[in-house]
Amino acid sequence: MAPMNQWIKIKAPATVANMVCGFDILGFAVNSPYDEMEMRMVPYVENGPKIIIINIDQYNLPTDPEKNVAGAALNALLLEYEEQFSNTTIAFEVKINKLIKPGSGVGSSAASSAGAVVGANYLLGKPFTNDDLVRFAMNGEKVASGVKHADNIAPCIFGGVTLVRSIFPLEIIALPSPELHVTIVHPQIEVKTSDARSILKHQVLLKDAIKQWGNIAGLVAGLMKKDYDLIGRSLEDVIIEPVRSILIPGFDALKIACKKAGALGGGISGSGPSIFMLSKEKETALAVEAEMIKLYTGLGLAHHTYVTTINEKGVEVIN
Amino acid sequence: MAPMNQWIKIKAPATVANMVCGFDILGFAVNSPYDEMEMRMVPYVENGPKIIIINIDQYNLPTDPEKNVAGAALNALLLEYEEQFSNTTIAFEVKINKLIKPGSGVGSSAASSAGAVVGANYLLGKPFTNDDLVRFAMNGEKVASGVKHADNIAPCIFGGVTLVRSIFPLEIIALPSPELHVTIVHPQIEVKTSDARSILKHQVLLKDAIKQWGNIAGLVAGLMKKDYDLIGRSLEDVIIEPVRSILIPGFDALKIACKKAGALGGGISGSGPSIFMLSKEKETALAVEAEMIKLYTGLGLAHHTYVTTINEKGVEVIN
Repeated sequence: MAPMNQWIKIKAPATVANMVCGFDILGFAVNSPYDEMEMRMVPYVENGPKIIIINIDQYNLPTDPEKNVAGAALNALLLEYEEQFSNTTIAFEVKINKLIKPGSGVGSSAASSAGAVVGANYLLGKPFTNDDLVRFAMNGEKVASGVKHADNIAPCIFGGVTLVRSIFPLEIIALPSPELHVTIVHPQIEVKTSDARSILKHQVLLKDAIKQWGNIAGLVAGLMKKDYDLIGRSLEDVIIEPVRSILIPGFDALKIACKKAGALGGGISGSGPSIFMLSKEKETALAVEAEMIKLYTGLGLAHHTYVTTINEKGVEVIN
Repeated sequence: MAPMNQWIKIKAPATVANMVCGFDILGFAVNSPYDEMEMRMVPYVENGPKIIIINIDQYNLPTDPEKNVAGAALNALLLEYEEQFSNTTIAFEVKINKLIKPGSGVGSSAASSAGAVVGANYLLGKPFTNDDLVRFAMNGEKVASGVKHADNIAPCIFGGVTLVRSIFPLEIIALPSPELHVTIVHPQIEVKTSDARSILKHQVLLKDAIKQWGNIAGLVAGLMKKDYDLIGRSLEDVIIEPVRSILIPGFDALKIACKKAGALGGGISGSGPSIFMLSKEKETALAVEAEMIKLYTGLGLAHHTYVTTINEKGVEVIN
């Protein structure tokens, strides 16, 4: 266990969930952007707070631990820690410098929840497994979106590409992947997760589902075989993307332009509005970025782009 | 190219299609049972037949090449051969000793089609790829079931576990797998493929489809990681099996008994009536067989069982 009052620094990466055909099951972490956090244990003072959240960014997110995603995640962790390991009560102080813009669709809330529980686990001497940490962090996602989901939490904590095979009971499988360059564009529009959920159809055609699971099997095999062509051919979503992409201006044209520039493929990150593309080479990822900038400049829409790679480590504690 | 009139022997394995969650995409070949075939090239006599089928088994299958699955597959091959490689016309003589009972659900028709085209390709000096051969053999499946499908043809020709990622255009991916023992029971009832198709719903719930593709991703990852537990947990079908299993007496009880005996999991082979179970150890596969015999003996239903392994080679030519 770390000494009281000793600060640690944490890097919590952005993540891409709903990896094309892998809606609700496949996601990955990226090296940029990421949130910076600082965290320490402090002695608990009777009737005092167990969790103190200090935002050192521009977003004015709630600091009430019940309403803050990191707070909700830490609450779940502390509850189990006190039950299992300790009779003494501990308090955490957390400073959050959010560099991943909330609402951008690249796991901003997941980064805070995951960063907080990985940091707490480190400070406590690592009593919990990664699976436990995902479970705790999902409470943060519930605060953020109303639904306990692990789509972003899993890759944020495990790093790399992750498969959430099952949510109840939770089962996360780390998938090996070859080097992949990731280009992300965040058009500065708002897509509410609730809207992105509500426009989905509850039923899908069996023939489309079969096509989708052929692509999912192909994508997993392609990643594990390091077969870039197979990855590219499998990056096709016939179920979710055709419905959700209408919420994102320029989506279809962007995808065509990026693939023409050499991208293997890509799609909506999470529930949008960010769009990601995967490339085999860095030069291609840069050419893809140029296409993204060109398109959204042409549409007169403010936007941010990132050219990055898959983050293999997940949340990092820097002592 | 082989000399005229020289006979070759062919072993064409049985196959399991619709591998639990992998409906229409995942299948594998087994070492037992298999069809035996003999084949030779003979000079074409003007106005004579290009394909001569001789059945040396008990099943009285049609010998008219248009109506025989091996004949239809060979017709497709010959047509392309003549177009691409030759101006001279060749004829084939094929003797089929069918040891895989037609209608049992373990790829009896696929074995004949696949065996014939692999044999012909060998005799012609291997002008065609395995993908070409699958394409030709699918014409046999059309004769057998009215639908060109590669579910059984792909594993029969490639061996091992195969993924048919896409049918148009055809794309087959060989998946590595760990050693797996396979127990198959064929209850002697008739399940018409057309009935098994017609009871399927055209629409499925999105939440079920997501569960299914989580399992498919888990199964592919489990096979490639040689993770038996993951394979076992992923062998779950929430879409097709609940509908089709009502056509097979004793299905639910059998599955429970086999898993209790140690099977990793399993399900309906093809469109049934055969049921297959996968096990890590041979002893388990034998214990599973005992459960199958016990159950169908108890139900007073005639049945055959096989205890075998995954066939890694596919159709074999024995010169």
